[in-house]
Amino acid sequence: MTAGRQIDFWFLIGSTYSYLSVMRLQSVEASSGIRFNWRPFNAREIMVEQNNRPFVGKPVKSAYMWRDIERRAGKYGIPIRTPAPYPLTQLEFANQVAVVAAEEGWCAAYTMATYRRWFQMGLEPGKDPNLSDSLREAGQDPDRVIREARSERIANALKAATDSARALGIFGSPTFAVGNEIFWGDDRLDDAIAWSQHGTLQSQPGAPAPH
Amino acid sequence: MTAGRQIDFWFLIGSTYSYLSVMRLQSVEASSGIRFNWRPFNAREIMVEQNNRPFVGKPVKSAYMWRDIERRAGKYGIPIRTPAPYPLTQLEFANQVAVVAAEEGWCAAYTMATYRRWFQMGLEPGKDPNLSDSLREAGQDPDRVIREARSERIANALKAATDSARALGIFGSPTFAVGNEIFWGDDRLDDAIAWSQHGTLQSQPGAPAPH
Repeated sequence: MTAGRQIDFWFLIGSTYSYLSVMRLQSVEASSGIRFNWRPFNAREIMVEQNNRPFVGKPVKSAYMWRDIERRAGKYGIPIRTPAPYPLTQLEFANQVAVVAAEEGWCAAYTMATYRRWFQMGLEPGKDPNLSDSLREAGQDPDRVIREARSERIANALKAATDSARALGIFGSPTFAVGNEIFWGDDRLDDAIAWSQHGTLQSQPGAPAPH
Repeated sequence: MTAGRQIDFWFLIGSTYSYLSVMRLQSVEASSGIRFNWRPFNAREIMVEQNNRPFVGKPVKSAYMWRDIERRAGKYGIPIRTPAPYPLTQLEFANQVAVVAAEEGWCAAYTMATYRRWFQMGLEPGKDPNLSDSLREAGQDPDRVIREARSERIANALKAATDSARALGIFGSPTFAVGNEIFWGDDRLDDAIAWSQHGTLQSQPGAPAPH
């Protein structure tokens, strides 16, 4: 019953919790039959507009965030070395590269490659060696892609994507969108899947009740 | 294997997401054999100290919060009428009453009663009619409890509880603590249970892998 279903995966390279989603969407696709559309946008721009700064200047909450991500990576069997460099210095450019990747159809490959270097090797996205190595891993020529990603056209495309996210009420990364229904956080992926299948989170007849 | 296990349930009456935990802990206790210690504390005081204001002045994130809680209440089969009055005007007093209740052993009954009136009937905790009706539902004399809750001893006990939470690194409500390991958010209850049973979130041999 799930064939052909799609979920928009709105993400920012630079979001920490998004690592957990980036690393498991392919296996979720394989097991659920749902297709994810990878949609990079500048969540940080929206967060600054909305005075939403969950970690900057919040050392207690930040320490918890790393511990929580580390525990959940263990739960999902995803390797991790924390803390990773944060916040990113080349955030916007890392995501402009993702916009090129989305246009050309290798966004998942690039995003997984750059996140893996960030969270497993401590290398920042958006600059070398992470940048060029991730592009090569995704089968691309770094010089060509970096030139394209620096163009005004791509900068505008990232802004347009951010505008689309803002119009949907999206305020952070990752967000899963099923039509106009949005689910924020890696920990809402199951809810988004259930919504895409049933249009509700209420228990289905015959399904085991969640506790 | 879980007999005798305990989890500290740190909560603030006034936290919206805590409604989901308050309303389901008893059934979780029944199905898991884990006992929850209800520990009221002043999360707002800690949040103000840490400049952590997740919803005040953030209309987009607040609108999402209500929608998310409404959807998840549906998932858990918990009745809800949103938005409930927020933030609470009598937050500190509502929690001083909870401290009396915790000392005397009827904290779960009071907290469930007052949250039900708040989230199902739109009546604020910490003031009438919610306050007295919830106390009566918990089998208590409102006059006696209200007098006791206004005492300096109880005000100090709430401060001491808040100090204990702060020392554990707790910064929000609800938080589940398994020894020194803390799990923040209603959506981390399953993680806290797994941790209390296995001391890790990593998949156990023979257990089905989470996706």
